[in-house]
Amino acid sequence: MSEVVTKGKKAKQASFSLMDIPTNEKNKALEKIAKQLIADIPFLLSENQKDIDEGKAKGLTESVLDRILLTVKRIEDMSTAIRLLINLKDPIGEELERIEKENGLLIKKKRVPIGVIGMIYEARPNVTIDAATLSLKTGNAVILRGSSSAKHSNMALLQSIHQALEQTKIPVDAVQLIEDTSRETAKELFNLKDYLDVLIPRGGKNLIETVIKESTVPVLETGAGNCHIFIDETANLEMAKDISINGKTQRPSVCNAIETILIHEKWFELYGLKLLDALTKQKIELYGDETVCKAYPSAKHATEEDWSTEYLALTVSVKVVRNVQEAIEHINKYGTKHSEAIITSSSEHANLFLTKVDAAVVYHNASTRFTDGFEFGYGAEIGISTQKLHARGPMGLPALTSSKYFIYGQGQVRE
Amino acid sequence: MSEVVTKGKKAKQASFSLMDIPTNEKNKALEKIAKQLIADIPFLLSENQKDIDEGKAKGLTESVLDRILLTVKRIEDMSTAIRLLINLKDPIGEELERIEKENGLLIKKKRVPIGVIGMIYEARPNVTIDAATLSLKTGNAVILRGSSSAKHSNMALLQSIHQALEQTKIPVDAVQLIEDTSRETAKELFNLKDYLDVLIPRGGKNLIETVIKESTVPVLETGAGNCHIFIDETANLEMAKDISINGKTQRPSVCNAIETILIHEKWFELYGLKLLDALTKQKIELYGDETVCKAYPSAKHATEEDWSTEYLALTVSVKVVRNVQEAIEHINKYGTKHSEAIITSSSEHANLFLTKVDAAVVYHNASTRFTDGFEFGYGAEIGISTQKLHARGPMGLPALTSSKYFIYGQGQVRE
Repeated sequence: MSEVVTKGKKAKQASFSLMDIPTNEKNKALEKIAKQLIADIPFLLSENQKDIDEGKAKGLTESVLDRILLTVKRIEDMSTAIRLLINLKDPIGEELERIEKENGLLIKKKRVPIGVIGMIYEARPNVTIDAATLSLKTGNAVILRGSSSAKHSNMALLQSIHQALEQTKIPVDAVQLIEDTSRETAKELFNLKDYLDVLIPRGGKNLIETVIKESTVPVLETGAGNCHIFIDETANLEMAKDISINGKTQRPSVCNAIETILIHEKWFELYGLKLLDALTKQKIELYGDETVCKAYPSAKHATEEDWSTEYLALTVSVKVVRNVQEAIEHINKYGTKHSEAIITSSSEHANLFLTKVDAAVVYHNASTRFTDGFEFGYGAEIGISTQKLHARGPMGLPALTSSKYFIYGQGQVRE
Repeated sequence: MSEVVTKGKKAKQASFSLMDIPTNEKNKALEKIAKQLIADIPFLLSENQKDIDEGKAKGLTESVLDRILLTVKRIEDMSTAIRLLINLKDPIGEELERIEKENGLLIKKKRVPIGVIGMIYEARPNVTIDAATLSLKTGNAVILRGSSSAKHSNMALLQSIHQALEQTKIPVDAVQLIEDTSRETAKELFNLKDYLDVLIPRGGKNLIETVIKESTVPVLETGAGNCHIFIDETANLEMAKDISINGKTQRPSVCNAIETILIHEKWFELYGLKLLDALTKQKIELYGDETVCKAYPSAKHATEEDWSTEYLALTVSVKVVRNVQEAIEHINKYGTKHSEAIITSSSEHANLFLTKVDAAVVYHNASTRFTDGFEFGYGAEIGISTQKLHARGPMGLPALTSSKYFIYGQGQVRE
């Protein structure tokens, strides 16, 4: 039996014992993991160094190496995040619905664990800890498959988790890592329908598209973010500047950063140059449509491709539109259904935009950077969903749960 | 451009105008459809006759022909079902969550339409009406792809729907039917990710498995039901007889009928023959394990395959088990996560069974036949989900919705 199938079977078995594990046992296990990580810092750092050395030898870029890197601070942060997770309400067992039928049947719809979660991810070893601890808190078993570039780090982190779980009632098989990081094990996971209840890809566009295309296991899609700000005719200049700069510069490499600014033609006539100057001052590179380039010669010419590009850098494309309707159409054509904002003083235009733009999160007069589980008060998140089924937007603990109907009778049969 | 892509584009366009269509407009359209169907009875019957004639010529079985058949009564029932749907609460716009942040941001999570629903189904023309009207009520556009065996009926029903919609503010493109029922159009739908938000297969196991395997569009799985009853040591004899007979005979061809009866060995010793006699009296064919066949020679020998078989007929397999634990393991191994029941006087065993059996609906002392949207009080249902994401169990109107975060600010940016 292959590694994937063997581990899949064990995970399924573990998921049955997790079905009714009490909250305090889960929290105790999380506490043990938080402690073990700190105790294992020297070991984790030395194993991480192997990945870094191999990565350098392979010529990985600085930014990828930085994603792989573990430091004392980063391990301490993982431990702190676990303690925050302990304090979050356990969603399992929550009564979602209660129906009492005339025939005496009592129907309760309750939150239950999903079962076994498969996680496929790139580089970042912190996903190993996030996925393991969020899965435990929600009573799910998890199978982790990281990338070869963080292999030593992931195996070391798993060892810490297992050492912690051995001191608890939770079976160590609740968290497993696929050690063989070849393409074949990913393919096996895509078709592990007998043991996996959901597959979650975390990483770049290519990874996510491959998983969606090839997986027969249901996928929770955490998508890319080609986010927009539309500055309407009646937008306040200072607000438009602040939100544009914040949306682009506060952390350019993340999915809720903005990539295109759409501007109402009348506003552009009055304030366009002031806004573009403010952006340029922040060292933001501009790609503009014809109107923008004509008015602001230092902007480069945007091509059709720019409107679909998630720059993830200090670059933004700018387009002048005739009205809110054109802005909505542009966003629904090029957006990735993530986070979209309108800056306007017109509540009518705001309502139209918020209703008609098809995205997980829509904003009136605020920065798209707020799309985040912590900002929403959900605590830890497993990702931001850009699909429409199951969970949309920041996915907190409830996204890792399912529901089940419990029906209590006294011998009722159907007429 | 192919028929599928052309209709996909139009459906997407229509879905944008449905995003903010008021409840009364949707109900008005449903009322017009309910009326039009009655007005069109002669036309619908004559078009249906063509399918029946062609089906007979092709040698379709009586039961398939019966599924295709429209009668005055069946069309009147469709019309009545639409009127019931009108009276159901519109889920769109419901506020699911409200968060007020210290920085003044107001976050509202609201129910919104999914967008465009693709429906692939077999034979039954009533699915055409169900899918169209449930989609309209939830503000979704829908693309229908029925089977060639009901082609004339489906096209006639679509014509009635379009005639009705022409008298309303809802664009006729909100409901479209793929006329080319070749394998190629199904394949095209599987990959119509740009225009379809979800694909729902309604039909046999093969259809569902093909859709899951080949679709890159997210799938709402309405699965098969290999349902069990476990009769525990302390089960009341009369209750066990009533529920077994009801679960098997009340409507044997449906997914929530039972296919296997598991019996505690001590109960079997005392009451086994009485139960088996009662089943035989109902003309139920029995397949038993060794213990059953020894005690009841008229039972046939069950093979390994029987435990996985959804008979959908007056046939049941019977197995004697040592205890509730063995029953749970059997169900989790062979079941399809649909509906499972325990008959017992022990609340401890009931809790264990209800918690550990992995199924959409679990019953204590009641018939599995209650797994049904109408029985739960949800009204019309689009099917029964046996998957764990998005919707599990009977899927009423909320299963055809998504959610969206609306965020209202006064210029907030992220620190």
